[in-house]
Amino acid sequence: MTELSKEPGKELGNAGRRRMLASTGGMMAWAGLGGIARADTGAADPGAAAGPAAKPLPAYAGWKDADSMIVHSANTIETKRTAFGNGVITPANRLFVRNNVAPPTDPALVKEPDSWTLEVSGVAEPRSFTVAELKTLGLAAVPMVLQCSGNGRNWFPHKPSGTQWTVGAAGCVIFTGVPVKAVLEAVGGMADGMVYMTSTGGEEIPAGLDPNTIKVERSVPISAIEDAILAWELNGQPLPLAHGGPLRIIVPGYTGVNSIKYIKHLAFTKEQSPAKIQQTSYRWTPVGGKPSPSDDAIWEMPVKSWINFPSDPDQTVQAGRVLISGVAMGGMTAAKTIEVSVNGGKDWQEAAFVGPDLGKYAWREFAFSAELAPGTHELACRATNEAGDTQPEERRENNRGYINNSWRDHMVVVKVA
Amino acid sequence: MTELSKEPGKELGNAGRRRMLASTGGMMAWAGLGGIARADTGAADPGAAAGPAAKPLPAYAGWKDADSMIVHSANTIETKRTAFGNGVITPANRLFVRNNVAPPTDPALVKEPDSWTLEVSGVAEPRSFTVAELKTLGLAAVPMVLQCSGNGRNWFPHKPSGTQWTVGAAGCVIFTGVPVKAVLEAVGGMADGMVYMTSTGGEEIPAGLDPNTIKVERSVPISAIEDAILAWELNGQPLPLAHGGPLRIIVPGYTGVNSIKYIKHLAFTKEQSPAKIQQTSYRWTPVGGKPSPSDDAIWEMPVKSWINFPSDPDQTVQAGRVLISGVAMGGMTAAKTIEVSVNGGKDWQEAAFVGPDLGKYAWREFAFSAELAPGTHELACRATNEAGDTQPEERRENNRGYINNSWRDHMVVVKVA
Repeated sequence: MTELSKEPGKELGNAGRRRMLASTGGMMAWAGLGGIARADTGAADPGAAAGPAAKPLPAYAGWKDADSMIVHSANTIETKRTAFGNGVITPANRLFVRNNVAPPTDPALVKEPDSWTLEVSGVAEPRSFTVAELKTLGLAAVPMVLQCSGNGRNWFPHKPSGTQWTVGAAGCVIFTGVPVKAVLEAVGGMADGMVYMTSTGGEEIPAGLDPNTIKVERSVPISAIEDAILAWELNGQPLPLAHGGPLRIIVPGYTGVNSIKYIKHLAFTKEQSPAKIQQTSYRWTPVGGKPSPSDDAIWEMPVKSWINFPSDPDQTVQAGRVLISGVAMGGMTAAKTIEVSVNGGKDWQEAAFVGPDLGKYAWREFAFSAELAPGTHELACRATNEAGDTQPEERRENNRGYINNSWRDHMVVVKVA
Repeated sequence: MTELSKEPGKELGNAGRRRMLASTGGMMAWAGLGGIARADTGAADPGAAAGPAAKPLPAYAGWKDADSMIVHSANTIETKRTAFGNGVITPANRLFVRNNVAPPTDPALVKEPDSWTLEVSGVAEPRSFTVAELKTLGLAAVPMVLQCSGNGRNWFPHKPSGTQWTVGAAGCVIFTGVPVKAVLEAVGGMADGMVYMTSTGGEEIPAGLDPNTIKVERSVPISAIEDAILAWELNGQPLPLAHGGPLRIIVPGYTGVNSIKYIKHLAFTKEQSPAKIQQTSYRWTPVGGKPSPSDDAIWEMPVKSWINFPSDPDQTVQAGRVLISGVAMGGMTAAKTIEVSVNGGKDWQEAAFVGPDLGKYAWREFAFSAELAPGTHELACRATNEAGDTQPEERRENNRGYINNSWRDHMVVVKVA
């Protein structure tokens, strides 16, 4: 179901308008970027694609592996739980997509990425840089979990509005670009008294609307400059438009919305952005509450893990030795331990991490060998990070269903025969 | 140019016949696996594709990013030097392809990879395993440089026969599978007195020929079991046929030919394989010499590095600050240091590694900031590994042009204005 069709008319005012626009923007993307990429997979009209049939990929993401993806809408595309491999890094063509507004449509974005310009302000010597210029300033490659704030929303019992992601609005990828600190060095450092790093996306704003209701602009605490980069590559390839190319700010450890795509302006500011997406969206608003800037912002990610194998509800697992595997992330510190339960959380045993450790912002693969008898089994996992935080049994309730890291919600029920 | 067309009739006997067959197999692959993947890129007949025009990708590798690849022949496809990113891991769709014989054509390989069977012998309890069974035995993900033995052959002055690779018959990827040691544990361990691990590929052998002249079977010292895996995933996706799927043995640190594709038989043996590809091919034969089993085998890779940016001969680099970047590998131990020279090797300065350290078998990204004045500059790099080996100035000469790690050969000449 699309966001638009799911609960039509439920939201009012700016929030509703923004959502309407996001969806409209999505339809513009289907049309404006070449329409349907895979005409053989179903109806060509996105309006007709509602219902149980799989939706085709939108053209700007037509290079994704269709069999690995769930297309919720043109702007919300999820990785199937069974499509995560055990290779730590999520291939670009299996990585989720989530846009708040349709991507910009200027063909130069794709053809001449090095000429994209970024304005930098709130610094000693404000100026703009082309991507080509940024490429001379420094280089960093950062393996990290990219995860939508709403990943796991599907399990909130009050059914928050928004895409009903399960686990697949996340991936572990390597972004490459220039450290924000190297850019700061080139502009004489930050101006005095700045508290936030504020990034503005290059999406096209429809005329006649208050930009603050539309624009994608997010502020994060200034401490994020330590590891943030301005990225032009994803997994060793030029950053695709679908993921924010030609230039995206990457804030490791923070939810995806904070890593602004097609970044046009990087500002160091004393206040948070006045944009709605900062002021009232992406907040820890209580269930049923009115969104308010006084609610805590959705910024850092917490410890989390889930099982990917076995996880296919249509699959019957053969009795005997079963290798259970999945991913564990620590959030702002590394995942330290991972436990697995084969009886719905009654008993836990420590599992082993396998494969390379790509640093604190990446996830780890884990594996656990279990003997499973015929019957139904509830497989769960819970991670603990270097800070000592253990993944909780229950989600932290909030109105829009952000940041679900409940191990119980992520449990897998498998049939063994 | 194809291998066949390059030096027609130069080789005689088995060597010539094998090459003829490999090339014929390549043509069979073009036809048998669906012909030309991108009919829009040029002539549809591979026989007509000789000459300066870019050749299209063969169908079995049609999913590669055509703009990133140099198609030497249907079985030899190179990554362009300018197509390596700085993200450490080479995306699968930019990874080189090199097959000695055309891939097997059974469609079940792709559709039912879990039913592929592997025979294991030279162990206490010989038996066969399906891939599905192997997946219950253990899990490992290994980041590593995959590199063709002949990478860099282009620079040997005696112009050895074989594909004229420069740097692009290499990539750093993550293979995922089961450790060979875990399989050995499941079969009661190795039989007594075994000295080699011998792997046999599942390629189809044409009737009427001595299999030893055709079959792809390689032996490596038994010490390789420490880190070897049987892999079913490449970079988090099911292992493609073009890279040896459904199952490939991966021998980290060894040249690519030792990691046998479509493996059907894993044997622990007292002798090296009688196959020609073991006995006389892939040997350190002196230039002009007759290949002999007494020549050392091409097994372990040495320390090596090269610059990827800037490396485009058609590009004029802007004078001023230039970020020079590339990759450095240690071979059997990790790369420890990397030096850069901007004057053809007269002076050297240590450069910095950037990005994650993925372990001793992976390469590291490095970056070096230089001020370059207008003119022509010779940019070089040389790596030193943890064992203390430094990349030499000169290649080790050998008849077939294997294992070129000369820093001088890999130097880049750039125009600055």
